[in-house]
Amino acid sequence: MRGMYKHASVALFAKLATGHIISHQASIDYAGAPPNLSTLANFSLFQTWRPRSHVLPAFGQIGDPCMHYTDPQTGLFHVGYLYNGTGASGATTEDFVTYTDLNNKSANFIVAGGKNDPVAVFDGSVIERGINGTPTLLYTSVSYLPIQWTVAYVKGSETQSLAIARDDGRNFTKLEHGPVIPSPPFAVNVTGFRDPFVFQNPQVDSLLKKTNGTEYTIISGGTHGGGPSLFLYAHYGDESDNFKTWEYIGEWWHEKANTTWTEAGWAGRWGFNFEVGNYFALDKDGYNPQGEIFTTVGAEWSFDPIVPQVSDNREMLWAAGKQSIVNGSIKFEPTMAGSLDAGRSAYAAAGKAVASSSRASQKSGAPDRFLTYLWLTGDFYGTLNTPKAQQNWTGSLLLPRELRVGCLNVIDNELARERGAWRIDAEHDNGTVTLATLHQKIAREPLAAFKSNANAVITQAGGLRSSGATFDRSPSSKHYVLSASITFPSRSNCTMAGLEILSGDLETTRIYYQFSNESLIVDRSRSSAAVATNDWVMTETESGKLRLFDVPGVIGTKVETLDLTIVVDGGIVEVHVNDRFALSTWIWSWYEDSKNIRFIAEGSEVEFGNVTIWEGLIDAWPERST
Amino acid sequence: MRGMYKHASVALFAKLATGHIISHQASIDYAGAPPNLSTLANFSLFQTWRPRSHVLPAFGQIGDPCMHYTDPQTGLFHVGYLYNGTGASGATTEDFVTYTDLNNKSANFIVAGGKNDPVAVFDGSVIERGINGTPTLLYTSVSYLPIQWTVAYVKGSETQSLAIARDDGRNFTKLEHGPVIPSPPFAVNVTGFRDPFVFQNPQVDSLLKKTNGTEYTIISGGTHGGGPSLFLYAHYGDESDNFKTWEYIGEWWHEKANTTWTEAGWAGRWGFNFEVGNYFALDKDGYNPQGEIFTTVGAEWSFDPIVPQVSDNREMLWAAGKQSIVNGSIKFEPTMAGSLDAGRSAYAAAGKAVASSSRASQKSGAPDRFLTYLWLTGDFYGTLNTPKAQQNWTGSLLLPRELRVGCLNVIDNELARERGAWRIDAEHDNGTVTLATLHQKIAREPLAAFKSNANAVITQAGGLRSSGATFDRSPSSKHYVLSASITFPSRSNCTMAGLEILSGDLETTRIYYQFSNESLIVDRSRSSAAVATNDWVMTETESGKLRLFDVPGVIGTKVETLDLTIVVDGGIVEVHVNDRFALSTWIWSWYEDSKNIRFIAEGSEVEFGNVTIWEGLIDAWPERST
Repeated sequence: MRGMYKHASVALFAKLATGHIISHQASIDYAGAPPNLSTLANFSLFQTWRPRSHVLPAFGQIGDPCMHYTDPQTGLFHVGYLYNGTGASGATTEDFVTYTDLNNKSANFIVAGGKNDPVAVFDGSVIERGINGTPTLLYTSVSYLPIQWTVAYVKGSETQSLAIARDDGRNFTKLEHGPVIPSPPFAVNVTGFRDPFVFQNPQVDSLLKKTNGTEYTIISGGTHGGGPSLFLYAHYGDESDNFKTWEYIGEWWHEKANTTWTEAGWAGRWGFNFEVGNYFALDKDGYNPQGEIFTTVGAEWSFDPIVPQVSDNREMLWAAGKQSIVNGSIKFEPTMAGSLDAGRSAYAAAGKAVASSSRASQKSGAPDRFLTYLWLTGDFYGTLNTPKAQQNWTGSLLLPRELRVGCLNVIDNELARERGAWRIDAEHDNGTVTLATLHQKIAREPLAAFKSNANAVITQAGGLRSSGATFDRSPSSKHYVLSASITFPSRSNCTMAGLEILSGDLETTRIYYQFSNESLIVDRSRSSAAVATNDWVMTETESGKLRLFDVPGVIGTKVETLDLTIVVDGGIVEVHVNDRFALSTWIWSWYEDSKNIRFIAEGSEVEFGNVTIWEGLIDAWPERST
Repeated sequence: MRGMYKHASVALFAKLATGHIISHQASIDYAGAPPNLSTLANFSLFQTWRPRSHVLPAFGQIGDPCMHYTDPQTGLFHVGYLYNGTGASGATTEDFVTYTDLNNKSANFIVAGGKNDPVAVFDGSVIERGINGTPTLLYTSVSYLPIQWTVAYVKGSETQSLAIARDDGRNFTKLEHGPVIPSPPFAVNVTGFRDPFVFQNPQVDSLLKKTNGTEYTIISGGTHGGGPSLFLYAHYGDESDNFKTWEYIGEWWHEKANTTWTEAGWAGRWGFNFEVGNYFALDKDGYNPQGEIFTTVGAEWSFDPIVPQVSDNREMLWAAGKQSIVNGSIKFEPTMAGSLDAGRSAYAAAGKAVASSSRASQKSGAPDRFLTYLWLTGDFYGTLNTPKAQQNWTGSLLLPRELRVGCLNVIDNELARERGAWRIDAEHDNGTVTLATLHQKIAREPLAAFKSNANAVITQAGGLRSSGATFDRSPSSKHYVLSASITFPSRSNCTMAGLEILSGDLETTRIYYQFSNESLIVDRSRSSAAVATNDWVMTETESGKLRLFDVPGVIGTKVETLDLTIVVDGGIVEVHVNDRFALSTWIWSWYEDSKNIRFIAEGSEVEFGNVTIWEGLIDAWPERST
């Protein structure tokens, strides 16, 4: 999600970003076949696939989310993101529903081009009570290219530098000194060394015999010939050091190159290089420093053969596990791992602990939480020749998610005992076990707001439905939340069940679960008529591994119910299942009438229930003039 | 010798350096009283004090000598120097007598302003057979200011980077990666971290159990609250590493802040911060890797109270000693130390081992040598408001010197036994000891050339002379070598003896030895009539400690003879004594007739002998058009 592409786009957006946004949409006929969209007028596609309720800049290209924090002065949450390849921009929110740009036209609060970062600003994270108590950013300052795990690492290309918040975060001023972490560990031939994620953790304090409240950072990367790693550093010295000195502790986590948690596919591949690593601790309610240790990482890998500077597949993974001292060094060992989002365009999750005392949490009554935002790349990591001038924006963040440890009581069988994206938390006498896994839900505030503020709520009768049956009433827009439960009589390999959305005479997107490979599928093959005239439109099928366990029923054992929550917001489709699975993707449906919803039920009869649509969503950016 | 002043001068010289040099000297009357020189026309003082035989650029401001090397391809010696505050320039020589600028108008071969050195290029040294066998420069790349031992160190201000010779050294191309030594050692609060000096040494290889031929570098600096240090690094990895990776070995040498080898003054003060440290090994013939370990350092110190960014006194010191492993770390312990040049303007010596196979040495038959060039600052480290536009050049290097271990058989008494700039090398049955010390002589080639090419040789009768007696014939110019021997009947505290030079009715410079404080004095109080109208003219007395030992005579004991060699070259006066003492300074004598030489002999009768003047010196820059 960075490297060649990010910078390739800079020139274009530097130009466009200066212009006001004038919508010429009226001239496009969404009842007729789509033209080659790159022939249309600039800005003409601005609204076509634009989400209403997601975080994205007013215009231009969004990159990795990062640099989030709660301002201790205001209690406001700041969501940040790389922007236009030139720096980072962001917004504040007091409810995770609506946002206020920090700067007019989403202008950056930090820009590359200083002594430490002549080439680029990459991801960073914020020490909320930093220098003089002020939010202080530790970020990757980039001096040289290329940077990619498939090529030799350019010494000094990535260093970690500080900047300090001014004007309530509208500007981060770089400190007038060199990088505070000026190089990877001595003589380590890294594949990458970026995206510092700062945290405090009493368990690490104790293991390392450090002062309580020590600031740590992990830095994501890996080693050539070795594999992906998270490098751990501890702030060294007292407050007067102003976070200038960081002690290298060791490779907190390392996996062998090109391996995986399990070849069965429950947790993607560790790949060759980690990016955007996050560190946090969770319990069943949310964030708890004494809780189970979790990490989220972006993993970079390749199919064979690896082509330098070209090969790059990505996975957005999570892992939970144990930290211990091994040979005098603190090491992380996963006990479970999975995919944070199975969508191929979903990546670069950046989270932050959000205290119950923060503005939004006080309003919603939420406990201490760990919230994460993923990126949904708009041009598939720079590889798609999308009509950028016509759309005038590229990419978005996904809705924020709350993470916690989730538990599920299931039948103690081989489905539960397999090594997967879960662990056995407890064994019971009655033939069941409690599984623990990572639970993730759309943050409570926006989800509640989408429902309570819906301009229409459609309740669709469920029950046994034949495949292809259209909803009695379909939404009138492409902005809604859809929920449905699907109950399976058995786990037949022939069974596929789900919903078609954005469906019309000429387009449809099929979202369904199938037991044959225990996967949630988003079939985009007919999702967009635009593909005929626009080769950048991706129609590849998205899929992610999801196990429905056997659970105790009223009479004997039954298959766990599939609870679908689908958010359609312009071109973005987020599919959330059973609080532990997500798959987000782009659907570039073209026709105005591609709004129908249909049932999918093949192979056996399945029962639909709780089918509801909340239409309209909420404009996340009420203060924007466009 | 760097910091504020160096950069303060840049603007002026950037402007002047573009103009051709037009001498307006004819308009100045050197028979009349000097005016305020800053009122004169630009370039009008170009010739007034300009040396003929020294290394200095065609015009502009010279800084530290550095980056010398013998090109393995050509055998030519390259002498380098910081230039105009913008980078480094240099010249080649095949005989240490005449030089050829590497670039037209002495243009720099490396210029600050890259990613690693946005602010400045400081001193470096050259691995002669470096990357791909090509001369490779390791230099201090500067990113932030201020840098001075009296103020807090700005993190990342000084890093060490590589550049590689192109076009036979006319250009050093920076490598497209970050600094190879990107920071001082972890958590060391340095006062400075610069001037890498690369070397190979089999004794270090052996102590550290490193591969024979390992490249090392010392980096000069010190620690706040600690004192001055030389930090040792070893190249890590094989040839394929291309000198990208340097392992920190430890503080090879450290002295407590504000201490000295001896308060008696034989070796100045260690001060608070080292600069321009050199490492080399000598025997009685010259350079020998198996020989005694020597270092030369620039020491920065202050009188009380230390005023941040202002206080800065400097000493150019040498030390010899032993290396050993202490607590697993290699440490240097001096066994003798002294001053390399007692002149207050002489500093920043930069040497290089010169093999007998090099071009000049083959011609002269010299063995392997260690040659060093000192800097003679032209504006006292930037503190003097000299008429730069009028002179159009500032500062010079001193004549190159050959260093070796020198021995002297002396009477074994308290004079010999005192802790000083010497050590007892051997004790003999006959009441004598052999002392060893650092011997330094003007390099053989230029000294021989000055004599053999003299346009006049004046031999002055010696013997007992009364003070003030003028030479029968004085030189007709201010460019010559003068030698004389002075024999003292005894070491009376009243005895002062030496020579007055640059002497006329209104000016004179007195160079003499006095026993009262065992010092060689250069009394400049009446050296320049210009001081009356130009407050930058320094007339402070220069002095340096020099012991004349008791030595065995034909009958009993006698005082060691003082053998003076004085080089007068325009405004530069170098005083060399007994191959082990040097004091170089500026004498801004004004009047055309201030050319007389007179005897000084006070307190007792002394005997002068071997008094000879070789006039003319040699134009070191025959290829320059000016």
